[in-house]
Amino acid sequence: VSHLPEDTWALVLAGGRGTRFWPLSRRALPKQCLSLDGGPTLLERAVARAGVPVERVIVVTGPDMADAVRAVAPAGVRVVVEPSGRNTSPAIAWGAHLVRQAGGQRFVVLPSDHLVADEARFAHDLHEAVAVAAGGALVTLGVRPTRPETAFGWIEPRADGAALVARDRRVARFVEKPPLAVAQELLAGGTALWNAGMFAWRVDALLDAYARHLPRTRAALDALADGAALAEAWGAMDATSIDYGVLEHHEDVRVVPVDVGWSDVGSWTALDDVLPAGEGGVAVAQEVVALDAGRNVVHAPGKLVALLGVRDLLIVDAPDALLVARRDDAQAVRRLLEEVERRGLGRYT
Amino acid sequence: VSHLPEDTWALVLAGGRGTRFWPLSRRALPKQCLSLDGGPTLLERAVARAGVPVERVIVVTGPDMADAVRAVAPAGVRVVVEPSGRNTSPAIAWGAHLVRQAGGQRFVVLPSDHLVADEARFAHDLHEAVAVAAGGALVTLGVRPTRPETAFGWIEPRADGAALVARDRRVARFVEKPPLAVAQELLAGGTALWNAGMFAWRVDALLDAYARHLPRTRAALDALADGAALAEAWGAMDATSIDYGVLEHHEDVRVVPVDVGWSDVGSWTALDDVLPAGEGGVAVAQEVVALDAGRNVVHAPGKLVALLGVRDLLIVDAPDALLVARRDDAQAVRRLLEEVERRGLGRYT
Repeated sequence: VSHLPEDTWALVLAGGRGTRFWPLSRRALPKQCLSLDGGPTLLERAVARAGVPVERVIVVTGPDMADAVRAVAPAGVRVVVEPSGRNTSPAIAWGAHLVRQAGGQRFVVLPSDHLVADEARFAHDLHEAVAVAAGGALVTLGVRPTRPETAFGWIEPRADGAALVARDRRVARFVEKPPLAVAQELLAGGTALWNAGMFAWRVDALLDAYARHLPRTRAALDALADGAALAEAWGAMDATSIDYGVLEHHEDVRVVPVDVGWSDVGSWTALDDVLPAGEGGVAVAQEVVALDAGRNVVHAPGKLVALLGVRDLLIVDAPDALLVARRDDAQAVRRLLEEVERRGLGRYT
Repeated sequence: VSHLPEDTWALVLAGGRGTRFWPLSRRALPKQCLSLDGGPTLLERAVARAGVPVERVIVVTGPDMADAVRAVAPAGVRVVVEPSGRNTSPAIAWGAHLVRQAGGQRFVVLPSDHLVADEARFAHDLHEAVAVAAGGALVTLGVRPTRPETAFGWIEPRADGAALVARDRRVARFVEKPPLAVAQELLAGGTALWNAGMFAWRVDALLDAYARHLPRTRAALDALADGAALAEAWGAMDATSIDYGVLEHHEDVRVVPVDVGWSDVGSWTALDDVLPAGEGGVAVAQEVVALDAGRNVVHAPGKLVALLGVRDLLIVDAPDALLVARRDDAQAVRRLLEEVERRGLGRYT
């Protein structure tokens, strides 16, 4: 697949911390800078997925993790550091400003910490999203759901029949993190998609949308264009998500479905979907020897991991810390992290 | 406590491999060279416990582990390497030869891989054992049992009443690794002791005993004294234990009871008895943070270990390997080790 048109840039959002991947992820080494599955880091893969040469990629990150992101970002990529984390809307607004400043007309937005199994197909879909955005719509890439997930936002395409949806791809509504019953209904309906934080738009269309839905953000952007300091403009922008602040209120939002083996790699147990099943469970390790063991999730690159009689564990080995948890408690890693901080062991976080 | 008499030497047996402590113990780094509880290595503590200045300590080890033993042995100690592992009888015979050669009259024998909680009291008991041995008896130090252990040999003192036993300390019989019912009886009897492989004797008395019970070993020793090569003499010695080959057949064996918080540290779970109970179980680690966790045995020195919802696990972190096992399977670590070797992963063993 060829690159996206020359007037198109890519903004990769790399400001998240990924606390659920502790003890591997740290304040200064966030999830996107890790290789969770033994391959290149998630950020490197996001940049490769962006569909433009590295010179047209902008990575936005936060001050705490800037060094780690710079260390991992492919050479030639521009890494910019937001003054503070204020959700996705200010980061994307600033991205629009930077793209415009650099002479770009359109840009795609990609998270830095997801995985895609079928990159070729994704490239095709991304081209299509950029093409759809050429008409002035704000375009979101909607992931074909595989489960009634309550932790994601969902997108319902217009219910005018599959053919019409395929033609104009209009969005009927966004459903923010639904209760299970609603998620099950959406899944059963067969047309709803997951909102995965991947977008394509024209700079002018996005700036117009900011003007209408988040006028303070738009004013701050104009001030920035007139030479205001970033720190000042930044504080004046609305600290909200692009979905909640702009897309959910905008009338011309379209969705391009993607069915590419996408995973947000939301916690260690997501490695179940990403790694091939092996002895004793799934593992990133030099070697695994397991006797009477199963359904474990292991991350100990470079080590021989020996499992004896253990099931349903999450085992994560970091250079200075070791986590052993019940895999059902994978979401509780955050609670453990809080406890570590509460005890004054912040050097491990 | 002062040193043992000047004619007394100490022989520390450091030829065991300690496979049950894999992945920390290795072919070239046996149990006695490890600090299992976070303190000095077991070998260093055995040398300190020997009751004589380092110049009168001889450490016998095997070729595979000689480098590790030399690296750990306190300066001034003499480390000698047996041509091959042939059980304790040849090693002790050779020790007798070396002590005699160096002008010593008596020596104590200590294993290199046990722990003693009350070292001062042990020193006192060791002095007593050497004093009892002055009369020409072969003396074994018998550990006061705390459980009906079937993995140890037991020693029954002569059943002539506690007072008589306390006076002459004669051994009635040795019971090799008894069935549980027998061990329970021995424990209930209140006088039987564990054979812990700790001895004291005069060189001449021991050589006489070899002559009577293992004449080939004695002949090999005489050849050694006449200038034969060690490799040659070694092969001619009986490959048996000192208990089975000599003590069980000898009429004048006496026992000095010791009640000193002794542990043979037979497997990882022995750390339960050696380490103070802490959060989530017992641990050698830099820090432990445990939520809803208990009865685990952890060895990960230098690391923060985080436990979440896990119970009854054995967790051992080595630089290149990580073991996670059910604690009930601690004895099966050997089986795991065999499996590792079977798969051609001998570099980890």
